Amino acid sequence: MATPAPAHPTTERLTVMGAGLVGSLLSLYLARRGHAVEVFERRGDPRRAGFQEGRSINLALSDRGWKALGGVGVANDIRQVGIPMSGRVMHDVQGNLTRQPYGHDGQAIYSVNRGHLNRRLLDLAEGQTGVTFNFGQQCLGIDLKTKELRLRDTETQEERTAPYTRLFGTDGAFSAVRSALQRTDRFDYSQDFLDYGYKELTIAAGPGGAWQIEKNALHIWPRGQYLMIALPNLDGSFNATLFFPYEGAESFAALQTPAEVAAFFDRVFPDAVPLMPALTEEFFAHPTGSLLTIKCFPWKYNDDVLLLGDAAHAIVPFYGQGMNAGFEDCTVLNALFDEYGDSAWDTIFAEFQAERKPNNDAMADLALYNFVEMRDRVADPVFLLQKKIEAKISGQFPGQWAPLYSQVTFSDTPYAEALAAGQRQDAIMARLMPHIQAEADYDQPTVQALVQQEMAARH
Amino acid sequence: MATPAPAHPTTERLTVMGAGLVGSLLSLYLARRGHAVEVFERRGDPRRAGFQEGRSINLALSDRGWKALGGVGVANDIRQVGIPMSGRVMHDVQGNLTRQPYGHDGQAIYSVNRGHLNRRLLDLAEGQTGVTFNFGQQCLGIDLKTKELRLRDTETQEERTAPYTRLFGTDGAFSAVRSALQRTDRFDYSQDFLDYGYKELTIAAGPGGAWQIEKNALHIWPRGQYLMIALPNLDGSFNATLFFPYEGAESFAALQTPAEVAAFFDRVFPDAVPLMPALTEEFFAHPTGSLLTIKCFPWKYNDDVLLLGDAAHAIVPFYGQGMNAGFEDCTVLNALFDEYGDSAWDTIFAEFQAERKPNNDAMADLALYNFVEMRDRVADPVFLLQKKIEAKISGQFPGQWAPLYSQVTFSDTPYAEALAAGQRQDAIMARLMPHIQAEADYDQPTVQALVQQEMAARH
Repeated sequence: MATPAPAHPTTERLTVMGAGLVGSLLSLYLARRGHAVEVFERRGDPRRAGFQEGRSINLALSDRGWKALGGVGVANDIRQVGIPMSGRVMHDVQGNLTRQPYGHDGQAIYSVNRGHLNRRLLDLAEGQTGVTFNFGQQCLGIDLKTKELRLRDTETQEERTAPYTRLFGTDGAFSAVRSALQRTDRFDYSQDFLDYGYKELTIAAGPGGAWQIEKNALHIWPRGQYLMIALPNLDGSFNATLFFPYEGAESFAALQTPAEVAAFFDRVFPDAVPLMPALTEEFFAHPTGSLLTIKCFPWKYNDDVLLLGDAAHAIVPFYGQGMNAGFEDCTVLNALFDEYGDSAWDTIFAEFQAERKPNNDAMADLALYNFVEMRDRVADPVFLLQKKIEAKISGQFPGQWAPLYSQVTFSDTPYAEALAAGQRQDAIMARLMPHIQAEADYDQPTVQALVQQEMAARH
Repeated sequence: MATPAPAHPTTERLTVMGAGLVGSLLSLYLARRGHAVEVFERRGDPRRAGFQEGRSINLALSDRGWKALGGVGVANDIRQVGIPMSGRVMHDVQGNLTRQPYGHDGQAIYSVNRGHLNRRLLDLAEGQTGVTFNFGQQCLGIDLKTKELRLRDTETQEERTAPYTRLFGTDGAFSAVRSALQRTDRFDYSQDFLDYGYKELTIAAGPGGAWQIEKNALHIWPRGQYLMIALPNLDGSFNATLFFPYEGAESFAALQTPAEVAAFFDRVFPDAVPLMPALTEEFFAHPTGSLLTIKCFPWKYNDDVLLLGDAAHAIVPFYGQGMNAGFEDCTVLNALFDEYGDSAWDTIFAEFQAERKPNNDAMADLALYNFVEMRDRVADPVFLLQKKIEAKISGQFPGQWAPLYSQVTFSDTPYAEALAAGQRQDAIMARLMPHIQAEADYDQPTVQALVQQEMAARH
């Protein structure tokens, strides 16, 4: 472990709770600013042999994430181990494929291995002067008045208290730091679960580590009330995830035996089944994960405690923005330090939550909306036609029309602005689409006149 | 304390967490059914000298509450110490009074002293065979798997564990039982605070214990963005409550000195100030309470744990239904025992939450709506005229039109049905009122024709 930094007039000893993706990146940002940082993490060190990954194997990194990684100079390093996905490939029940690009040529989201990314960020942070990591430290409670953490060492089971001066809660959706804030007066909080769970499965690599379905795409099997997706891994396999109702005719509750699972997959995902040799074993061996949205406010307690990432705003995964939003928290916090200086804690914490709360609320709504899009609308030819027409408008009016997905994924436009712009554009598309039956219709004079009229009316 | 009841084939030893209003009434219901009941309560015994009341001094009891009290034969007893309030009396800034009856002649809500009611219920429950109360027992946590409570004696500070077989959580808005459930998978939860706090104040009794403003009314000083209310006490005083923004030009934050408080009250509540000799002292001595809505689901954990009352569904106080809703939980649970028998726990718990959840959600929404009505709309002559016209329709079409307030307050119509009926009636009133400028207009042939037409169209 690195040696603590010497005392410095504008720096402080800071405490970070949680060394996941956001916690490790935040520690790196704080350390680069010259602060001494002590990090506590409930789980073991993921760089040690025998560490069990807890959650999704891969994640989709997009522009906001890259910007945050770029801010500490690690973007290129991570890009080497990411797989660009330039569009969605939809698989229908007959195995027919439909491709929908995510943006224009050259734009892509990246499938990145969560464990690799986390370990790389930990290495970088730990290599920084003044950062110390303490793994296997479960936070049992926090005394906000005396500013003390109650910790339990998960190996020795010994309990102890540790004081803090300033505490950053990056301990995820089930945050212990947020739990303490929840018991303070006037703390608004909600946790909302979907009636859907998820199950991680594997599409195997082909001979010689070949990808058996298109490598540079996010694959979707949209089935109306449920869906399966798959993201590529470097070893030729794909990490597939089934998002599926807990109860009902087609649900986890209805699939109780390997034979039932096999029959169901054969019927609804026939083109995937031959690529999933471990399907039934994995289905029963892997846990069923739940999907939740967490909203709360305030995210700060005086100028002592600040929540970031999933601890402040966990969202469902359907827009691929959970990690990106948490990383953007780091970018924004860092910019506030630049603006107000490293000791204006009260102002920085207040500005941070004022800026990030409406944006992460908007992202939470977008993520829920995208569940319907991914499981249902992407299978609708009219929807796909609309996406093509939107791309044409965007090309015809550069800088005046960015599709909602692009604003969320390929820009750092604040999420709330992206959502509002997307709603305005949706209203326009709802008026245009009745006049358009095919892609070529876009060039018809009557349609062009309507488009010109709509674009003029926007200003 | 009473001796535990002998073992009985259809009864069990039950645990109740919380001996407030709902907990003590529930214990009485359970004991009357022959169950042995052990009750734990964080606070001390309110019947012992020196007990400090924690919350509002008086409450408004209405039909649902009376029905629940009647079910254990204690309604008449409580009615002796309640003060009927047959309507609202609005006080404007000039001190002019406007009266609005709550229902028809003979209908009233009752101002009841919380402490008295709680102590009476405790006496009755403790007098029942098989009930034991344990006061000063703080619940630190619950192990839902091993079914153990972790308790701390608030006098000795000793900690211990206590096993339970079946646990009823009636421990209020900040329920420790619900806290344990919140950490289970797929538990939806929200706590939402208003940007308003409240302050309890006193309108003094007159000479000889006389009531200085009308005794049999709930007094309201509606001021648009805030309000004060007052409920009568038996000793001639009134318990007044100011509901007031935390921040802003007129807010708790803006009243920092006795002079500021006095000037503010003189300006906006001039007729009340002479009756409030301890105003400025109380304003700074009494805490500012917060106002929150809690929603969660499920309310049960297997057939081991059930939440009732504020622990399951805390609401803001503006409809006077918080206690009534919690008492109605007891009525409904008791009816389910009657229907399914005393050992069908799984069915009873499942039916209880299925029946009560939508109704208490509706009540939460009604309570928030009534805040606007009480602080603002009751000062509007058009609103008061509409209430009079509604009373006329109700009289003209008996059994076909009950004003929303009457359905909530003077019936046991499920809250969700009352809300839906109220919304349908509101739509009708929105169409009728443009044709009505005064009470007498109701009898005009054109208006009568419209009324007949609307009533016919309802079926």
